[in-house]
Amino acid sequence: MNSKPATATLLVSCPDRKGLVAAIANFLLTYNANIMHADQHQDLSEKLFLMRVQWELEGFTLPMESFGAAFAPIAAEHQMQWRVSLSTRKPRMAIFVSKYEHCLVDLLHRWRIGELDCEIPLVISNHEDCRRIVEFNGIPFHVLPVNKDNKAEAEAEQWRLMEEAGVDFIVLARYMQVLSERFVERYPNRVINIHHSFLPAFDGAKPYHRAFARGVKLIGATSHYVTEDLDEGPIIEQEVTRISHRDSVEDLVEKGRDLEKVVLSRAVRWHIDNRVLSYSNKTVVFD
Amino acid sequence: MNSKPATATLLVSCPDRKGLVAAIANFLLTYNANIMHADQHQDLSEKLFLMRVQWELEGFTLPMESFGAAFAPIAAEHQMQWRVSLSTRKPRMAIFVSKYEHCLVDLLHRWRIGELDCEIPLVISNHEDCRRIVEFNGIPFHVLPVNKDNKAEAEAEQWRLMEEAGVDFIVLARYMQVLSERFVERYPNRVINIHHSFLPAFDGAKPYHRAFARGVKLIGATSHYVTEDLDEGPIIEQEVTRISHRDSVEDLVEKGRDLEKVVLSRAVRWHIDNRVLSYSNKTVVFD
Amino acid sequence: MNSKPATATLLVSCPDRKGLVAAIANFLLTYNANIMHADQHQDLSEKLFLMRVQWELEGFTLPMESFGAAFAPIAAEHQMQWRVSLSTRKPRMAIFVSKYEHCLVDLLHRWRIGELDCEIPLVISNHEDCRRIVEFNGIPFHVLPVNKDNKAEAEAEQWRLMEEAGVDFIVLARYMQVLSERFVERYPNRVINIHHSFLPAFDGAKPYHRAFARGVKLIGATSHYVTEDLDEGPIIEQEVTRISHRDSVEDLVEKGRDLEKVVLSRAVRWHIDNRVLSYSNKTVVFD
Amino acid sequence: MNSKPATATLLVSCPDRKGLVAAIANFLLTYNANIMHADQHQDLSEKLFLMRVQWELEGFTLPMESFGAAFAPIAAEHQMQWRVSLSTRKPRMAIFVSKYEHCLVDLLHRWRIGELDCEIPLVISNHEDCRRIVEFNGIPFHVLPVNKDNKAEAEAEQWRLMEEAGVDFIVLARYMQVLSERFVERYPNRVINIHHSFLPAFDGAKPYHRAFARGVKLIGATSHYVTEDLDEGPIIEQEVTRISHRDSVEDLVEKGRDLEKVVLSRAVRWHIDNRVLSYSNKTVVFD
Repeated sequence: MNSKPATATLLVSCPDRKGLVAAIANFLLTYNANIMHADQHQDLSEKLFLMRVQWELEGFTLPMESFGAAFAPIAAEHQMQWRVSLSTRKPRMAIFVSKYEHCLVDLLHRWRIGELDCEIPLVISNHEDCRRIVEFNGIPFHVLPVNKDNKAEAEAEQWRLMEEAGVDFIVLARYMQVLSERFVERYPNRVINIHHSFLPAFDGAKPYHRAFARGVKLIGATSHYVTEDLDEGPIIEQEVTRISHRDSVEDLVEKGRDLEKVVLSRAVRWHIDNRVLSYSNKTVVFD
Repeated sequence: MNSKPATATLLVSCPDRKGLVAAIANFLLTYNANIMHADQHQDLSEKLFLMRVQWELEGFTLPMESFGAAFAPIAAEHQMQWRVSLSTRKPRMAIFVSKYEHCLVDLLHRWRIGELDCEIPLVISNHEDCRRIVEFNGIPFHVLPVNKDNKAEAEAEQWRLMEEAGVDFIVLARYMQVLSERFVERYPNRVINIHHSFLPAFDGAKPYHRAFARGVKLIGATSHYVTEDLDEGPIIEQEVTRISHRDSVEDLVEKGRDLEKVVLSRAVRWHIDNRVLSYSNKTVVFD
Repeated sequence: MNSKPATATLLVSCPDRKGLVAAIANFLLTYNANIMHADQHQDLSEKLFLMRVQWELEGFTLPMESFGAAFAPIAAEHQMQWRVSLSTRKPRMAIFVSKYEHCLVDLLHRWRIGELDCEIPLVISNHEDCRRIVEFNGIPFHVLPVNKDNKAEAEAEQWRLMEEAGVDFIVLARYMQVLSERFVERYPNRVINIHHSFLPAFDGAKPYHRAFARGVKLIGATSHYVTEDLDEGPIIEQEVTRISHRDSVEDLVEKGRDLEKVVLSRAVRWHIDNRVLSYSNKTVVFD
Repeated sequence: MNSKPATATLLVSCPDRKGLVAAIANFLLTYNANIMHADQHQDLSEKLFLMRVQWELEGFTLPMESFGAAFAPIAAEHQMQWRVSLSTRKPRMAIFVSKYEHCLVDLLHRWRIGELDCEIPLVISNHEDCRRIVEFNGIPFHVLPVNKDNKAEAEAEQWRLMEEAGVDFIVLARYMQVLSERFVERYPNRVINIHHSFLPAFDGAKPYHRAFARGVKLIGATSHYVTEDLDEGPIIEQEVTRISHRDSVEDLVEKGRDLEKVVLSRAVRWHIDNRVLSYSNKTVVFD
């Protein structure tokens, strides 16, 4: 792939007011930052200001370990929520999968050829099926069967494994178990799911069967952050494809796989690139 | 436009069994039909056979006024529901509109340049707003205000006008009144509506506002035949377009207009061309 | 439509260097500007910085008639090319058309319902065909027949009419005459054309016939600024639609009309909103 | 996947005339065929009739080994070119690849999960790079370096390997060598290539770089049968995706990979399903 320069990316959200762009731009200029990309958005209804700015580390005169202290006064003055990430530190992604392997295989391939700039310290599944392809990629594969009786223990073990592996975020690549509230609260805006319908249509079970029964002319897929409410979390990306009366449910499942792969991989990609900010159950995806 | 030869189009649906294609093809061949296009579909789950066949009238040795009698034995043998249409007899379309004129203007323009091969004997509205553009196109414009008290009388008057005008089917071009059950039963599969969402998502009122609130990344439009259940009828066509966090509700409304125009006009076009067969709340749209 | 606040929009392009965002943000902050939207882009290969910033006029303490003088030092220091536009002053658009009316009708309707925030002081054609629809919209319609012998005089008369009407930019809505080099030089990046193919494929004449002959599976349309080289100017927008072996050339023409309308109207819309910056035969379309 | 019944598929092309549908339908009915799907097309300009008909083998009273003899009289009478395929006999596909593995990996995965109903007896490459993933899938991997001096011998060896493996058709999954005329003539309409542009735009080398330079707003991919003229063969499928001024050439390459995978896999799928008929440098893709 293309070798990109080392950069820092700052994500900010705060109440909208005058001078925010200038404040941030001046702060960075003080330390000689070479801004490579900046994008901001105002939500007028919520009076919210959101910004993403990315600059080169080379030539930036503020040591990043001191960034927090140096930026604190500005953040305090404007009541900013913020986080900064370094391209030199790859985020660590855990993949959860059940039996359908298409999203998993797609993510692993994109990772292998450098499309996804992250580490994958482990894959967790409730079935053995995907072991071979995961281990082919040199990634540890953990099988933790889950049922209604052992869910709590299973999740506890999942957490242990993820702590051990220093996981930053989780991708549910067609993982067929519902996560507990405690699990979700533990990883706010850090669990990405793929739902195989155009939400909010056909949320819940068997969306392709219901799409077939309803006779829609397009089917879709939706990637979103997981919240307490199943399929209700902030939508990151959606895509659709055309179907016709000639398509059986099996054809829908097959066409849907291509949607699921693309829609999930985009969301993962954007999350890794720190492009996604979530607020009031929506997302801003910065260009 | 391109001058097309005079044709007859036969639409058939019946229980699926062997020999149906041969039976119809042989019948037409007996009278020397030059088949220009034929398309069929089997719904395996419903064991249903559906066919559309179009042939040139020139050289067809069976007078069309005798078609019914000649075809009856085959229809009876195979329990066919069927109808035949002649390109020489343009269907007569009534347009219902309220205040939003974009779909109306689009339909009228397509009709004027020959895209829609129909007659438009009248436009009915519950408001005066669209009179000028309708009359510019030389079409009678009738205003019938509707409210909960006069709905029955208003519909009675609508029917009278449509009988008088020999209307075959009705297009609701953003008509903001709910039709009564009696109205809908009177025109089965002959009332086409445009709903400004990707059904079944956001059925009912204010779909753009709800799409905005939900933070979807695509918005859609759906054309369907009207049934007793609002927004539940057989879907004829759907389309979507991409939106982003930058789009306000007003932007959604604006982008949605382009969807509504295209999706409604396709449905109307296909209905006029006798391409649409409806069964078990779905449609087959023949190529 | 939605009543938007009065705003100023600044478009800047200059050699890329550090501090440009801060310089502009600080300048605007000095005069208490409430920035509603800002977007910038760096072309790394060309070392070029491009920015669009929009702010509310209400509360902006610098009188806009003094903007140029006040901004001059910054512009000079950074070798900026820039222009500023006020939402309170609608740009004046001339439409050129020949016989095909679909793009014209589409633009006029969008203008009538407020989608296109501009004035249309005149429509110029080399044929009488579109007079009625133009005059229905209350716009002066001028017919200037053009042939190889009178081209120079015809263009001179076109210029006279446009000067008289204070035209800012020109839209060629399927205008079937090639403009002279002198004409194009007179309106740099101010003449928008719609070409009925996915450029650079099928540039020149009869694109739909050639697309049909080549057996492509998608057809397209392209809107671009007109330059000396026919169909070679900076592309503003493109869109495609699917076709199949069932589509005749006439079907392509028909499906193409929907593309042409949408693609041209987007380009016009973005040009009016000062979203388009052109450099090295490309465009940046700011969000 | 879904277990489908055993079927035969007949592809026919001949001069268009009356009675062709009846002739074929009657022939099949004679032997009690249960037609599952039939689709035909007339090319009016070429006066050509093309048909695809698929029926269940169960209950079909004509032994398939006698099909040719039994169908011969009808074929002769109507000057039909025809071929029949059995779902019980999977076509044997050779994949040619160089260093880019994304299309290869995609095809192998679709094959593994049953999307592609074929055998893959071998993969041939001019580089070692893809050995591991190919052998992971249990498929023999042959490396035959090719250069201008040894091309003839290399192709001879490729042919030997393919004869040995009983290959029916070849997929060039980003294979970076031009095939000789002799090679192409040997496999008419049996070599499928993926070109990484929206043909005829940017045929030849470096399409993404040229798309970037031209400033197009959409990029595409095209799958086609290989003929003597590079990138000029009959197009099977095309797709595009949107890009913006923010996308570098590397971004185009990355977005393009997703197009290439989908567009190539569709073409391969349709070829395997006997849906593609080629004539006068175009394709008909039957539904």
